Amino acid sequence: MIIVLRPDATDEQIAHIKEKLEGLGLTIHVSKGKERTVLGAIGDERILQEQPLEAYPGVEKVVPVLKPYKLASREFHSEDTIININGASFGDKKIQVIAGPCAVENREMLLAIAKDIKEEGVCFIRGGAFKPRTSPYTFQGLGLEGLKYLAEVREKTGLNVVTELMDPRDLEMVYEYTDVIQIGARNMQNFRLLTEVGGYDKPVILKRGLSATIKEFLMSAEYIMSKGNQKVIMCERGIRTFETSTRNTLDLSAVPVLKQLTHLPVIVDPSHGVGKWSLVTPMARAAVAAGADGILVEIHPNPENALSDGEQSLKIPVFKEMMRQIRLIAGAIGREI
Amino acid sequence: MIIVLRPDATDEQIAHIKEKLEGLGLTIHVSKGKERTVLGAIGDERILQEQPLEAYPGVEKVVPVLKPYKLASREFHSEDTIININGASFGDKKIQVIAGPCAVENREMLLAIAKDIKEEGVCFIRGGAFKPRTSPYTFQGLGLEGLKYLAEVREKTGLNVVTELMDPRDLEMVYEYTDVIQIGARNMQNFRLLTEVGGYDKPVILKRGLSATIKEFLMSAEYIMSKGNQKVIMCERGIRTFETSTRNTLDLSAVPVLKQLTHLPVIVDPSHGVGKWSLVTPMARAAVAAGADGILVEIHPNPENALSDGEQSLKIPVFKEMMRQIRLIAGAIGREI
Amino acid sequence: MIIVLRPDATDEQIAHIKEKLEGLGLTIHVSKGKERTVLGAIGDERILQEQPLEAYPGVEKVVPVLKPYKLASREFHSEDTIININGASFGDKKIQVIAGPCAVENREMLLAIAKDIKEEGVCFIRGGAFKPRTSPYTFQGLGLEGLKYLAEVREKTGLNVVTELMDPRDLEMVYEYTDVIQIGARNMQNFRLLTEVGGYDKPVILKRGLSATIKEFLMSAEYIMSKGNQKVIMCERGIRTFETSTRNTLDLSAVPVLKQLTHLPVIVDPSHGVGKWSLVTPMARAAVAAGADGILVEIHPNPENALSDGEQSLKIPVFKEMMRQIRLIAGAIGREI
Amino acid sequence: MIIVLRPDATDEQIAHIKEKLEGLGLTIHVSKGKERTVLGAIGDERILQEQPLEAYPGVEKVVPVLKPYKLASREFHSEDTIININGASFGDKKIQVIAGPCAVENREMLLAIAKDIKEEGVCFIRGGAFKPRTSPYTFQGLGLEGLKYLAEVREKTGLNVVTELMDPRDLEMVYEYTDVIQIGARNMQNFRLLTEVGGYDKPVILKRGLSATIKEFLMSAEYIMSKGNQKVIMCERGIRTFETSTRNTLDLSAVPVLKQLTHLPVIVDPSHGVGKWSLVTPMARAAVAAGADGILVEIHPNPENALSDGEQSLKIPVFKEMMRQIRLIAGAIGREI
Repeated sequence: MIIVLRPDATDEQIAHIKEKLEGLGLTIHVSKGKERTVLGAIGDERILQEQPLEAYPGVEKVVPVLKPYKLASREFHSEDTIININGASFGDKKIQVIAGPCAVENREMLLAIAKDIKEEGVCFIRGGAFKPRTSPYTFQGLGLEGLKYLAEVREKTGLNVVTELMDPRDLEMVYEYTDVIQIGARNMQNFRLLTEVGGYDKPVILKRGLSATIKEFLMSAEYIMSKGNQKVIMCERGIRTFETSTRNTLDLSAVPVLKQLTHLPVIVDPSHGVGKWSLVTPMARAAVAAGADGILVEIHPNPENALSDGEQSLKIPVFKEMMRQIRLIAGAIGREI
Repeated sequence: MIIVLRPDATDEQIAHIKEKLEGLGLTIHVSKGKERTVLGAIGDERILQEQPLEAYPGVEKVVPVLKPYKLASREFHSEDTIININGASFGDKKIQVIAGPCAVENREMLLAIAKDIKEEGVCFIRGGAFKPRTSPYTFQGLGLEGLKYLAEVREKTGLNVVTELMDPRDLEMVYEYTDVIQIGARNMQNFRLLTEVGGYDKPVILKRGLSATIKEFLMSAEYIMSKGNQKVIMCERGIRTFETSTRNTLDLSAVPVLKQLTHLPVIVDPSHGVGKWSLVTPMARAAVAAGADGILVEIHPNPENALSDGEQSLKIPVFKEMMRQIRLIAGAIGREI
Repeated sequence: MIIVLRPDATDEQIAHIKEKLEGLGLTIHVSKGKERTVLGAIGDERILQEQPLEAYPGVEKVVPVLKPYKLASREFHSEDTIININGASFGDKKIQVIAGPCAVENREMLLAIAKDIKEEGVCFIRGGAFKPRTSPYTFQGLGLEGLKYLAEVREKTGLNVVTELMDPRDLEMVYEYTDVIQIGARNMQNFRLLTEVGGYDKPVILKRGLSATIKEFLMSAEYIMSKGNQKVIMCERGIRTFETSTRNTLDLSAVPVLKQLTHLPVIVDPSHGVGKWSLVTPMARAAVAAGADGILVEIHPNPENALSDGEQSLKIPVFKEMMRQIRLIAGAIGREI
Repeated sequence: MIIVLRPDATDEQIAHIKEKLEGLGLTIHVSKGKERTVLGAIGDERILQEQPLEAYPGVEKVVPVLKPYKLASREFHSEDTIININGASFGDKKIQVIAGPCAVENREMLLAIAKDIKEEGVCFIRGGAFKPRTSPYTFQGLGLEGLKYLAEVREKTGLNVVTELMDPRDLEMVYEYTDVIQIGARNMQNFRLLTEVGGYDKPVILKRGLSATIKEFLMSAEYIMSKGNQKVIMCERGIRTFETSTRNTLDLSAVPVLKQLTHLPVIVDPSHGVGKWSLVTPMARAAVAAGADGILVEIHPNPENALSDGEQSLKIPVFKEMMRQIRLIAGAIGREI
């Protein structure tokens, strides 16, 4: 931790800060420059996170040297984490595709989609049984009934199921019916929910919050991991900017940045990232080219009738063409789909 | 709802959309311009919210005419809502101040603060028993113990208690010990939590999310109101921008904008808005001048020792000086504190 | 300058950086912690601004200790700068109001407005002769003709004239006809324009760029001051965010932040900040309460016919009511208008 | 143009607006719904751009139906524009690479780089002779001397030269020495500069502003085109967000969005987009995969000694490896480099 003092900081103020930090077991280096005095605190920086150093008289700014997350960091765990789910792995040479409708709408539709994606070699089906909707007046998901349809699809097709958890009270129920639990963007800092899924052994797809920095995103992964569950898959899904021609701005640079900072697998959701079906395929190509370990994509046999996110859902033939294109990109960078 | 068609939209596409919308009970006006055809759908626009119209072939963009919220809107309820809490009102001539520590740290500190703020005529004490912290390694709040200290303060001083709810499972417990439930910025779109507090009769302070638009903010109020609880107090607390010299950017224009759009009371939290104690007083003055119905402010007898948010907490004498200044501003605009 | 090294930085890399920086005349302190080595460079930090230290092998991040601006900083010049323009001062007890139409449209309208604002005790009239418009097909200003009308108004009323400069080629012409040169938000980083106005002795109102940080804003002031012209007035006018209910988000916390960082006067333009006339008065009140040294406001006798920015222009009676209200706020904080 | 009226709009207000718009030659459709009246104005919408309709009493909001740009739009010009520069084309099957140092630093370095990139089949060298720097105390470019070095390189190698223009007063000089004029991000809305380059026949690379929307970006292209110069190449180079782990957030979805909206070629600058050399190659791959017509990249033989942007400059071997990788991606999507 580096503490830059104000130009008018007094010796008493400096002594006070030094004493306080030494009392916490840190060694303090004082470095007096012509215009500023700088203190360097050496020791376990994480105990400093609790200290409101900027509240001390004489302090101008505080600069952490270490990252605030540990278990999620590549420094702590240098090799790529590979998360194996019934034989299909995230973080390996193969790029996984997760496809399905935004919401589980009914049994037949789900079975039909499952058949379509299985033909494409996809190993994961997605579908929401609980839907976080901005309006209380719109479709909120089928709940348990939806989970049961997903489980039936799994049994019939061998596809792994990915579904969203919104409420800690639903965890045991969702746990039973799914292979991967999704934490949505709006819940990325629902710390109670993170704590809960951290206590189970089910893999978690953690979506980046609408305005979350990458550091905060990794801190949310740390929340889960600190409770024991190390199987976290990071998912970039677009951040909010002032641009309105897309639903969000898909931050593909987050892929190589995350790959440098963490050992966890990184996937991309181009559907929410752009919000318009006609932009999904080029962004899926770009995500694979940027190094993503997986693609999460919304598809629907008839988007006009979708109960949510129809605008961004791919029709089946468009999805099949996307698969063809991203397979070529994967091949060009020595990976496969 | 206005539907702007693409320049290459075919007659079949137009007929298809028209048929679909008429099937929903709407009347459709077709307006053919030289460069674009525009459809106007007349009827209950809220049933259109479920329709993914942008997924229809031939559609370029869809423009809603009505606001997506109703109960929260001033159109539906033109007079200011006044929320009376044991004799202290939000939305009236008097501007309410809510003051207290970020987190309840111990009994003595809370009692001391309560005495200080009561001397200033403040009617509400705040303090978190459950703290949403970005790091799993920092202080998470005293939980039930903290709630009990708050209840003791209420009994001894008559102050009303404001505290945050993070988890639907804690609702009954929090309900018992508090006068106003706070929903934090990170939970503004925790729709399950909104739904739960909507089922109770306790007033709710709803904080604006870090990157929420005012429309989304009002939709979250609508969530609560649609379940029955009409006592919602809107709280602007800063939005995330690229500016780093403040913790957030306090959007004070949200105050007059909300006053135009909704009948609900609007308060401002300058402490989280700026994140530095030395900026809190000028922004509290500005919030009152902008028309806020209340100010939510963090104070601490000794910010250096605060377990959270010490940087932005006012010392007691600074708080008293802030009170003096905002009283003068309130007087200048015909209100009182 | 603090240089945080990567955990895998080698001794050779450290020696290389040390040698390079010592060669620039700096003293280097090496501080080895358990997890990171940190270098502190002591000496004239500004010569380090040219060094791409993050391009050196072994460097993780570089943290400047000093601010990159000097002449504009309060450290360099601790007392408030007062800029006197023909007897009217910015930065003093009196809060100056600058009012007028967005664009100079014709002679009569300008004379009428001048009369109206003079009655309110205003000392500055604004009006654009050159207009930066986002569309090439809209009104671009009257040019020299507009400048002449402004000069006539000055002669007839004694009002000081504020007008925008867009192009270095117009500087001599604008210089002759105006008392204060305005640099618009879109030109805040037009470094050639800043350099040019820095070479003259005319006061400059520098508007904050749409997405400029406060540090960048002050660096642009430094550009002007480094060429000799110390008469710079900083103007907050709203920054771009994702919020769409206002044209921009007026960042009023910029007022107290700037007051801490710089000795220059700080004014606020609520008209561009919000973009809707009905929000201008509350935000003008808030700006005064936050500590602004002046208010820049757009008015128009008949906004329906305005050639630009009609939506945000105040009609004369609304303007007069705004003046009444901000005078009361000014009085409440011990200032005057 | 659609005009949504307030629920309390009076018949007089409606009649007034109708009369005004009919006076402009438009046909008005009035559509009365239960909750709102909506006016549709049919005719040349561009004349409405000058009307401050939101300033009219009774108006709630105004929704344009047509895009505000014309010459740049794909509707006006449906086929891809191909810009041929001495035999090398933008907008064709071949993806062009433009490489070189941020600033021209000296003659030898430029000649060495030219040799390196020519070996890779690159047809365009970039290098700034005039540099827009945020600090007045840093290297501002060699000016005319730099232009002469660029011209010498062109003569010796046959490479086309791309260089930035910052000031209309330099246009004739820059015109003489360059093949493509670059307008930098900070000048995207320097309307005078746009107007000037619009009057010449030299191709222009227009960089997206730091916080420009795609609509504004296209309006700036329209500025140039409306003066006669149709040879505009759009360049995405990252937008400003709250994310700090990259210099900017490269908005790759801008590529397919622009390809839908305009016929102009679209290129990507990953160097400024991310600001760190180690992230440039994956983002260059992603840009090609997203459909970019070109890549603009900063390289330097020895980034440690670069006079600007060393952190983001690729060393020559890294550049060569990037070329190898993007060639494979180009092949996978049926293009070539």
